[in-house]
Amino acid sequence: MIKGVLFDLDDTLYDSSSFADRARREAIKMMIDAGLNATEEEAYNILQRIIKQKGSNYNRHFDDLVKAIMGHYEPKIITMGIITYHNVKFALLRPYPDTIKTLIALKKMGLKLGVITDGITIKQWEKLIRLGIVDFFDEVVTSEEFGLGKPNIEFFEYGIKKMGLNPDEAVYVGDRVDRDIIPANKVGMCAIRILKGKYKDVEGGECAYEVNNLLEVVGIVKNLKG
Amino acid sequence: MIKGVLFDLDDTLYDSSSFADRARREAIKMMIDAGLNATEEEAYNILQRIIKQKGSNYNRHFDDLVKAIMGHYEPKIITMGIITYHNVKFALLRPYPDTIKTLIALKKMGLKLGVITDGITIKQWEKLIRLGIVDFFDEVVTSEEFGLGKPNIEFFEYGIKKMGLNPDEAVYVGDRVDRDIIPANKVGMCAIRILKGKYKDVEGGECAYEVNNLLEVVGIVKNLKG
Repeated sequence: MIKGVLFDLDDTLYDSSSFADRARREAIKMMIDAGLNATEEEAYNILQRIIKQKGSNYNRHFDDLVKAIMGHYEPKIITMGIITYHNVKFALLRPYPDTIKTLIALKKMGLKLGVITDGITIKQWEKLIRLGIVDFFDEVVTSEEFGLGKPNIEFFEYGIKKMGLNPDEAVYVGDRVDRDIIPANKVGMCAIRILKGKYKDVEGGECAYEVNNLLEVVGIVKNLKG
Repeated sequence: MIKGVLFDLDDTLYDSSSFADRARREAIKMMIDAGLNATEEEAYNILQRIIKQKGSNYNRHFDDLVKAIMGHYEPKIITMGIITYHNVKFALLRPYPDTIKTLIALKKMGLKLGVITDGITIKQWEKLIRLGIVDFFDEVVTSEEFGLGKPNIEFFEYGIKKMGLNPDEAVYVGDRVDRDIIPANKVGMCAIRILKGKYKDVEGGECAYEVNNLLEVVGIVKNLKG
């Protein structure tokens, strides 16, 4: 008997990777205007390499970019990049067109809803608040709060327990095979993969359900509830 | 022969303390709406005490406030506070009405201009950029960058040297007797105290020049230049 649905956040409930990418491109243009001595493509490629090396939660991407290109620290250029990145990201931030419809439909079915997300607690809550969807969720758990992130199955078990559910009573929805679908299945949840974001073309045959849009989750959960 | 003017930033070039205070009050109202179990005055007084204890550059004021009132961590309430605080602070941020006039007049006199400020480098540059005054300054030095803040005279010496000036060629403008005026005088600069912000009523007889508005600095510097 399905009693709840747990969601990943970034790229599952809203478009994270393409907005971040557009914000980074705008930031680079502004940094070049402020004196960064590179072409857009050069700077973009270096930035991508830094993000890959240091992870997306590292908070000195632009510092490293300026050092890599200029050979020294240039606070004005770095700050122009950071301000522009945040301004553009906030300007673009919105749920997928069917996110709120999906959450309403699931709530109407009497289901508990939750979020299990990697990231800094305040940053992830900020996204939920700015997206206008925070009040749909009974529980939100973050890797920072738990001390261990995906794909550790203990993190998923912690989230399910906080919801007051057993694994077989919960459906998990996420975009990544390696960090969402596989560990959710290991824990004993039914998992639905949403084909969005930068990992949408990654191969992975383990997932029983794949959807192109969030609203399809409603039909699957209805069938699972029986 | 006066060749340059160095400024403190917060409460000297723009109204920092009253804007921060208004932003904190709005943040508290929003946190109470989100479930913070206190009156505005109670929460405000606790927050003031936390800021006094931990300093204004501590980045967990709202975390501590929520823990002090609720007894535990509540990410939704904390995040509502942080978002509101930053939104209101950015909405109110602007130079004093005579800041840009003053900077233009000093530039027209052929003077070098600089900033010597305590604080996190990127945050202080962000203020200069958002205030629209960054391009007036030949040099900006921060305590984070130097590794030592006010009232250490080494920090002032570092700033003067970076401007390519001798102490007797520079005028310093700041709002605090203890952290601006006294160390600037010790280093050998002429210092002008601006009576603005939360320290404007602090007694201190050491200062040769006191002004109520920034524009008065122009006349004093003219006389000093001779």
